[in-house]
Amino acid sequence: MTVSAANKVREPERQPALQARLDCRAGQVTQTAGLAPGYVQGNLAILPETLAAAFHRFCQQNPKPCPIVGISDVGSPHIPALGRDLDIRTDLPRYRVWRDGELIDEPGDILSHWRDDLVAFVIGCSFSFEEALLAEGLPIRHIELGVRVPMYRTNIACVPAGPFAGPMVVSMRPMKPADAIRAVQITSRFPSVHGAPVHLGLPHLIGISDLAKPDYGDPVPIHDDEIPVFWACGVTPQAVIAAARVPFAITHSPGLMLVTDLQNKQLAVL
Amino acid sequence: MTVSAANKVREPERQPALQARLDCRAGQVTQTAGLAPGYVQGNLAILPETLAAAFHRFCQQNPKPCPIVGISDVGSPHIPALGRDLDIRTDLPRYRVWRDGELIDEPGDILSHWRDDLVAFVIGCSFSFEEALLAEGLPIRHIELGVRVPMYRTNIACVPAGPFAGPMVVSMRPMKPADAIRAVQITSRFPSVHGAPVHLGLPHLIGISDLAKPDYGDPVPIHDDEIPVFWACGVTPQAVIAAARVPFAITHSPGLMLVTDLQNKQLAVL
Repeated sequence: MTVSAANKVREPERQPALQARLDCRAGQVTQTAGLAPGYVQGNLAILPETLAAAFHRFCQQNPKPCPIVGISDVGSPHIPALGRDLDIRTDLPRYRVWRDGELIDEPGDILSHWRDDLVAFVIGCSFSFEEALLAEGLPIRHIELGVRVPMYRTNIACVPAGPFAGPMVVSMRPMKPADAIRAVQITSRFPSVHGAPVHLGLPHLIGISDLAKPDYGDPVPIHDDEIPVFWACGVTPQAVIAAARVPFAITHSPGLMLVTDLQNKQLAVL
Repeated sequence: MTVSAANKVREPERQPALQARLDCRAGQVTQTAGLAPGYVQGNLAILPETLAAAFHRFCQQNPKPCPIVGISDVGSPHIPALGRDLDIRTDLPRYRVWRDGELIDEPGDILSHWRDDLVAFVIGCSFSFEEALLAEGLPIRHIELGVRVPMYRTNIACVPAGPFAGPMVVSMRPMKPADAIRAVQITSRFPSVHGAPVHLGLPHLIGISDLAKPDYGDPVPIHDDEIPVFWACGVTPQAVIAAARVPFAITHSPGLMLVTDLQNKQLAVL
């Protein structure tokens, strides 16, 4: 190191989640998985106030697929509890804008789409519990393979609210039976990020006929000494919003989540 | 009711666990299941001091099949922590006396077998967690059918200690997958009575080739929408003691446990 470099005023080190949001805001992020390790990432759903109350009731009644970790005031793009500097209009890498159930735009910010009547919901994501599983030494197949988690529409009906209704979407991770038991224990500690599995073994009982053909994400192999373990998935609210064909909604783009200042470990109830 | 009956001096009402022990002591009990609901029942293992230390280490290293809920001083037939009045020599309905690995006697008390060098171990029993499962509305097949829980020798090796070694014995309860997940959560709260399951689904992975042929207890049907859920079983220490062919040991007779003053709810860690 040269003397002049040592004498330079150092940039104050930014908190990793804030840095991640600034990188997203600057258009430098292509996927948020692995970004700001330890910090909670969330699914995003934005709806007009006229629909937001029904959607809020939907989430309240379906807490496993739709655990709310944050909510904005009407018209406010800020959610101070998730990050004081946070601007929901710019801080995700990419958004999906829906009109009458059709995807009409996938912009890098939603400044031009923002309205004074919008309410933003941030919904827990499996990244948080996956970190806890990995920390306990449990292997996660899709992470090992570098692919997206396989997700399936089930025959488990969500409790409807207003126009919002539809089946629960689940994510699947193959595990050895003893690991599956440990995974139930670990993820039970994190109810605000989907919590314990909703099902294991016997996929046909929840309407899944072929594990090799997920409805979303990528298939992963299941070994002979493993069973499929199913968690409620944050894709559920997005699927429900699309199916409701509401006049207007905005969601995140898959895999491009909101990075918050909350830490995963803060979500543990035990 | 006649006047004279009403005037009779009432017997003071005995605490249910004490009453159960007195009934056992009086030879009036043919099985302890259902006796003194809410109170902890335990498996019994009595060994000479020369073997007790190794057995204690065995239990310490295999806490899921051998969770110790009480232990006597050398030569003492009392375990005040489990019941101040408790006499381990008389308070179980029936005992098994073992010499060199052979069952030599099944007496109703062990007063004539008692020695100054004996140490008594009381080991947690599945009755406690079954009560918790039933309280949460989870059906238990063998209880519904009025038969003994099916138990199986597995290929899971216990950690050996001194002469004590052998496979873990497990009990099996068929459950719907969502109930199995709930059962993991509920029984995880009770580590001192076997705790969470050790396995579920795929019985061949733990060396069980035919669920219809348990090694102990009775077979129960498994429905198409159920998976087998396996818990470590308190028969393990008894099987290990028999296999070790130790010079002298005393155990309880199957299904005839020690009723203690501890309450099941006191064992919950959460």
